[in-house]
Amino acid sequence: MRKRIRPSAVTNVEVVNTLFGRYADLVADRIIPYQWDILNDRIADAEKSWCVENFRIAAGEKQGRHHGAVFGDTDAYKWLETVAFCIENHTGAEYKPVAEGLIELISRAQKPDGYLNTWYTIEHPDKCWTNLIEGHEMYSAGHLIEAGVAWYRATGERSLLDIGVRFADLIEKEFGPDGGRREGYPGHPEIELALVKLHEVTGNEKYLSLARWFIDMRGREPNYFIRERKANEGEYLFFDRYETAYAQAHMPPAEQETAEGHAVRAMYLFSAMADISERCGDEALRAACIRLWKSTTQRRMYITGGIGSSAFLERFTTDYDLPNDRMYCESCASVGLMMFGCRMAALTGEAGYYDEVERALCNTVLGGISMTGDHYFYVNPLEVWPDSCMSLTSMEHVKPVRQRWFDVACCPTNIARTLASLGSYIFSEDGESLFVNMLISSRISTRVSGGNLSLYLHSSFVQDGEVRMEVEKEGAEPAFIRLRVPPYYKMGELSINGKAILPEVDRGYTVIPVLEQGSFVITMKGRVVPRFFAAKEEVRADAGKVAVMLGPYVYCLEETDNGANLANVFVSPDSAIEIAQPEKPLPGDLPSLVFEGMRLSRSIVEEDALYGTPGFEMSPMKLKAVPYCLWGNREPGEMLVWMKALV
Amino acid sequence: MRKRIRPSAVTNVEVVNTLFGRYADLVADRIIPYQWDILNDRIADAEKSWCVENFRIAAGEKQGRHHGAVFGDTDAYKWLETVAFCIENHTGAEYKPVAEGLIELISRAQKPDGYLNTWYTIEHPDKCWTNLIEGHEMYSAGHLIEAGVAWYRATGERSLLDIGVRFADLIEKEFGPDGGRREGYPGHPEIELALVKLHEVTGNEKYLSLARWFIDMRGREPNYFIRERKANEGEYLFFDRYETAYAQAHMPPAEQETAEGHAVRAMYLFSAMADISERCGDEALRAACIRLWKSTTQRRMYITGGIGSSAFLERFTTDYDLPNDRMYCESCASVGLMMFGCRMAALTGEAGYYDEVERALCNTVLGGISMTGDHYFYVNPLEVWPDSCMSLTSMEHVKPVRQRWFDVACCPTNIARTLASLGSYIFSEDGESLFVNMLISSRISTRVSGGNLSLYLHSSFVQDGEVRMEVEKEGAEPAFIRLRVPPYYKMGELSINGKAILPEVDRGYTVIPVLEQGSFVITMKGRVVPRFFAAKEEVRADAGKVAVMLGPYVYCLEETDNGANLANVFVSPDSAIEIAQPEKPLPGDLPSLVFEGMRLSRSIVEEDALYGTPGFEMSPMKLKAVPYCLWGNREPGEMLVWMKALV
Repeated sequence: MRKRIRPSAVTNVEVVNTLFGRYADLVADRIIPYQWDILNDRIADAEKSWCVENFRIAAGEKQGRHHGAVFGDTDAYKWLETVAFCIENHTGAEYKPVAEGLIELISRAQKPDGYLNTWYTIEHPDKCWTNLIEGHEMYSAGHLIEAGVAWYRATGERSLLDIGVRFADLIEKEFGPDGGRREGYPGHPEIELALVKLHEVTGNEKYLSLARWFIDMRGREPNYFIRERKANEGEYLFFDRYETAYAQAHMPPAEQETAEGHAVRAMYLFSAMADISERCGDEALRAACIRLWKSTTQRRMYITGGIGSSAFLERFTTDYDLPNDRMYCESCASVGLMMFGCRMAALTGEAGYYDEVERALCNTVLGGISMTGDHYFYVNPLEVWPDSCMSLTSMEHVKPVRQRWFDVACCPTNIARTLASLGSYIFSEDGESLFVNMLISSRISTRVSGGNLSLYLHSSFVQDGEVRMEVEKEGAEPAFIRLRVPPYYKMGELSINGKAILPEVDRGYTVIPVLEQGSFVITMKGRVVPRFFAAKEEVRADAGKVAVMLGPYVYCLEETDNGANLANVFVSPDSAIEIAQPEKPLPGDLPSLVFEGMRLSRSIVEEDALYGTPGFEMSPMKLKAVPYCLWGNREPGEMLVWMKALV
Repeated sequence: MRKRIRPSAVTNVEVVNTLFGRYADLVADRIIPYQWDILNDRIADAEKSWCVENFRIAAGEKQGRHHGAVFGDTDAYKWLETVAFCIENHTGAEYKPVAEGLIELISRAQKPDGYLNTWYTIEHPDKCWTNLIEGHEMYSAGHLIEAGVAWYRATGERSLLDIGVRFADLIEKEFGPDGGRREGYPGHPEIELALVKLHEVTGNEKYLSLARWFIDMRGREPNYFIRERKANEGEYLFFDRYETAYAQAHMPPAEQETAEGHAVRAMYLFSAMADISERCGDEALRAACIRLWKSTTQRRMYITGGIGSSAFLERFTTDYDLPNDRMYCESCASVGLMMFGCRMAALTGEAGYYDEVERALCNTVLGGISMTGDHYFYVNPLEVWPDSCMSLTSMEHVKPVRQRWFDVACCPTNIARTLASLGSYIFSEDGESLFVNMLISSRISTRVSGGNLSLYLHSSFVQDGEVRMEVEKEGAEPAFIRLRVPPYYKMGELSINGKAILPEVDRGYTVIPVLEQGSFVITMKGRVVPRFFAAKEEVRADAGKVAVMLGPYVYCLEETDNGANLANVFVSPDSAIEIAQPEKPLPGDLPSLVFEGMRLSRSIVEEDALYGTPGFEMSPMKLKAVPYCLWGNREPGEMLVWMKALV
């Protein structure tokens, strides 16, 4: 039997990459304290969170109504998960007392039977479990459990885990196949993947069974959600119209062919499906996961790893429908794509899934946060004309500058917990091999084949094409480093201690044997060159256009470098792309890219007309592109990823 | 003093143009009976109207709740106005008894004090006049009055007019500058222009004064709408957020610089402003109208005469923001643009305003109705990919095929009344001159300079460049034909009875004197050639694109002629455009246009990738374009106006 692949523990990894290291440091330095201020409504010019306040009211320590989103509790849970990761990775110990105070407050807000949801407790204690479509009780429980697991792993303390266990036990009493329990499953998947983690940390099989039951029941006829809507007719909170595909409940997950509905819901569900297939050997779920991954990444994903083409309902639409200016591409959905991709790699052992994990991370997820850590994008467009992003129009969801907070604020805490646990995305392990999934400079120290193995990954591939791994191996048993050589990297030579090797490639991983004890330097020489990309011709929004990438980084034009009216910029896909200095004050050391282009300086002959005789005049211009993940950190203005090509 | 210009009476005109004549005939043949069935909820597969039902309930003749839009009554009024026009133009006498029955029903639904609005009467009789922002009481009154005026003009009967007068008198008692009357003005302008008509037909000055007072009060500080919202907090029907600019109440109309807010509201307000300026000689309103016309047509209008770039709130956005696929461009807004333009021409005597009246009529307004008369567009995009127009997405407002009816159904009846009164858009008069505003073949017989003048306008300019006017003049006094020679027409020779003349041009009108009694044949020879157009370079959505027009008609590509994926079509603005046979079974005799283009048949080198190495392959193809106003009458599919140009 194949060894099980697990993400490496956050505690063992230090991210030192100039870009990601900077953001990883920001988490403890700035993001955690800033978000704590937000959760306590202490930032004057930001949307109010109400999060801590709601727990106080639910605990009976304050009077008042619930405010904010029905799932607002999860911001606290994701914040705690982030603190846990920072304690685990040795950057955030100082926040432990504050976090413990919050955990105690949460504990006091939990009902004696284990129920925990401030909205229902404050507003409708009589209506628990009656509105699974909208109520988010199990979604919130899932984030509570994930936070509890992270806290336990980071501190060894069960305080938060036990709150989650009590709630999970209540849910397991309420829902299930027999004993007169309730039918139904979550309107927003999340608890399923959390229950898998809870099973892992507690060893209790019932959590895995419940997760599997939720997946098995989902979308079966007669559809639970349709029955629930009938029962609640006229009493819904926000869905006056509803289709079950919105929540991926239009058919059993194992039968689904295409990524449908709300993009975050889809990613969290698919992640749980991959988890359960991996744990339980469920072949139908595995096949479904492969189909749904392809549907997502080969037909419904932006070049930035953004997903969710429709702002209304934040959802998938149809194949190749990828408009660049008005889409949603919520940051959380790309976090979800990373989660799904890692699990697919664990399920299959295939390196290729990390192509899209990396794409989402290096573009949409990193782009979701400002270089100062305290401003965020929720929506991640590939083309912005700030003038048109007006409030009270169809474009008001698109923000041309990052915001301090949101009335629905799932994304900032989701980005934070992802950055804080980056090590577990970069590395994974199966006991015999250390998987190096992304070439992001880091140090890891872990146990492989019964002995300690430490690895310092130094990747300067963007600068000089070199990837260097300093390995220290203590154990005597043979171990392997499985290195994902990304598709944008043209490998020249691979050597160990200066001696060239020709390693085997297994499921996309270059397998480097480390057979003996001792120190080794593995060097990979090669090239990463900036390149133009086009989209498949079915993608109407990108027809006749090109984007430019350097390695995993999508680049974009900003008005501050290139002037206004970027829609009039043309570029030849044969232009030479020059690597230039990083733009100040952008973080990291990713170069800017410079290439020749043309600007349509005039379109019509007439002076004053809106429409007139075509008289296209083009002027040559130097274009400067910066990494998409760093856009909007300087002077606000237009931004553009897909440039018109001179075809 | 300048003579006042008035639209010619509908009764005097017969439209014989092969295209418009066909649609004008459709009104009585098909549209009136079809819409009557709709208003009575007799069409099984259409959205329900509830319109007649609501009047029955309000009249106390049936029990039940109000259904449908709060302004649903206006569908009945516009239907009656359409019937009136058809009685007046001698095509619809057969509908008089049915219409009289409806008028009697309306009369029974009117309250003893004159109040008439089925929504308030049925649902909230206690809340009249408390929600001017949303209530549409005065909007509905306006359409009632317009219908009453049309009915009176068509039949000489005061039945419907008196209902309107009673309501207008009540409104005049309720609202006004003194005597303890209410403050406030309509949330949706319309009554203002109707009151001007009522003044005209009754001679009663108080209606003109009230209209003027509504305009004068609008947007003054302290803003009435802001006060009303405070008073009604939490009790609004559909606006949870509101800005006064939505209803053009952000500042006094005379001070407004740009076309803002809901496009139909804007057009109806601006039309009333032009009316009042013309009647009262108000120079500030006149200057505002000129500014607002320019703002609308020079910076915020589609090449099709569509207006309203944001689907959310159906509103104007910002200069040059004219996205082609997701906008609103409601049919009613283009009807409103026609109304505004005609009034501007009457106010200024300038022919040029008809350039945009004609643009709106020949493209968006005519395009809003199927060639069968019983299917309608509400939203009029310039680019449609049916697959992406999915329900429960941001694109669900865009319908790739015309619909039988709508839950909010202002457009079908608005198109109908416009087509039924087309003669008054084609011709206008000032007692001395007959203005020929659009070269749409028609006959008119009217009185000019104290004598009868009949004119048969035969315009075959699209086919052979000729416009021929057979004039029969009875009176002895000199008369003038003021002919708008449209900008797309390259005039060669103008002659009377075969004798070339070189007439004066006054404010854009070619002034042809008809000095004597007798018969004259005026012939204009010239050319209209199909042409490519581009948009000003500020219009980002059209950057590097061209559209093709023949005279006033915008053309488009349809999938049925050109295959799918029109986004990949390129065309050179230097291509020769060939005039081809009209496409069967499209109505009228507008030719198809054929030109060489290229199709991007492949974009990337890789077989299976979504994004890959650019490898643009172009194949030459013949493109066939049909008039935009006739799109969607054959096989459903993609449609495109703005084609990528080979720049």
